[in-house]
Amino acid sequence: MPADRTLPVTDRTRHRRLREQGSVSRDDLDAVLGAGFVCHLAVVVDGTPLAVPTVYGHDAGAGTLYLHGSVASRSLVQAPGAQVCVTVTHVDGLVLARSVFEHGVNYRSAMVIGVPRRVTDPEERLHGLRVLSEQCAPGQWDYARRPDRRELAATDLLALATDEASVKIRTGHPGDGDGPDAALPVWAGVVPLGTTRGAPVADPALRAGIPLPPHLVG
Amino acid sequence: MPADRTLPVTDRTRHRRLREQGSVSRDDLDAVLGAGFVCHLAVVVDGTPLAVPTVYGHDAGAGTLYLHGSVASRSLVQAPGAQVCVTVTHVDGLVLARSVFEHGVNYRSAMVIGVPRRVTDPEERLHGLRVLSEQCAPGQWDYARRPDRRELAATDLLALATDEASVKIRTGHPGDGDGPDAALPVWAGVVPLGTTRGAPVADPALRAGIPLPPHLVG
Repeated sequence: MPADRTLPVTDRTRHRRLREQGSVSRDDLDAVLGAGFVCHLAVVVDGTPLAVPTVYGHDAGAGTLYLHGSVASRSLVQAPGAQVCVTVTHVDGLVLARSVFEHGVNYRSAMVIGVPRRVTDPEERLHGLRVLSEQCAPGQWDYARRPDRRELAATDLLALATDEASVKIRTGHPGDGDGPDAALPVWAGVVPLGTTRGAPVADPALRAGIPLPPHLVG
Repeated sequence: MPADRTLPVTDRTRHRRLREQGSVSRDDLDAVLGAGFVCHLAVVVDGTPLAVPTVYGHDAGAGTLYLHGSVASRSLVQAPGAQVCVTVTHVDGLVLARSVFEHGVNYRSAMVIGVPRRVTDPEERLHGLRVLSEQCAPGQWDYARRPDRRELAATDLLALATDEASVKIRTGHPGDGDGPDAALPVWAGVVPLGTTRGAPVADPALRAGIPLPPHLVG
């Protein structure tokens, strides 16, 4: 892992607005990418930019995002070597200010920009699929049946280096607590938002006598 | 409201993969757009497609999405009349199958494609901001201080018609319950995921004696 954990600033990742929310820390980038498993892939298809939701895996040590290529195949078959953007966003809260204008959202977001490559090396293909699987459903790679040769052949895997990335983080309370609006009789603060995980629900087709494995409990 | 609630299928919105997950129902579209307030805007900036997270409001009656233009100004100043895509995604669950290959995600997603227009009519600007505000923080438009003339002038508002849209919905259990893998001693089912709203946290700068308004309780 490189000693310098600062992200390079390029023309595409320079923070133009709300500078206080920008981060050039690779640790922040890794934290944002590590906290989710669904991203939005921006890709141009027939001249139209599309934002396609898809799952991803992040190998922080290698600085590589892995995506299921099949989801993006419309574009990536048509435009090999094309620029894409992968955005991961976590919504942490509603920021309620004294004025509508100062309302906002607490969030953590990362945009990774670059040209993805198709992963062809069999060893890296297996590694990338494992990274992706473990990010979405930790513990399942060693528990469920792994992909066989036919399934591996049917899976298109893409890799995107995280060399060029933009991170934005907003936390805390509204900014109008020390302005003239602070005198208004209006409540201000934050409504926290988060993701919850419910108790696992068994497939009605599950055959009898199969317990919930430990990694899915709690 | 038009009697036909079927979305037109265009070359850009035709479902190419996983047909069973596609919906051409405008009611489904409205439900997906109504259930969130953060979207990803795909837009080409200097030849690179970016997926930019931003808030939105949906006027279902008018078939119009409203976006804060300032967020997208890098692109929309550079490329007036440009095609964009607005994607709203809700992640509802992890689908755990007997094989890694059959794992998936339960989700609801809508992609709206088109050329946004800048809203200049003062009446529609106020309407659009109200729609956006009420979608993000219901009740706040009538409670907090509304935008004054200076704030209105500083706000760039964009409108995007929902005429061309693609909706995808996946629900239910894994699909390998009736195949050969059903014989494996592997648990299968769904882990539900959802969004939670915590109790409101008051701004430390909030002056004393201001109660939490009723629309923020519960």
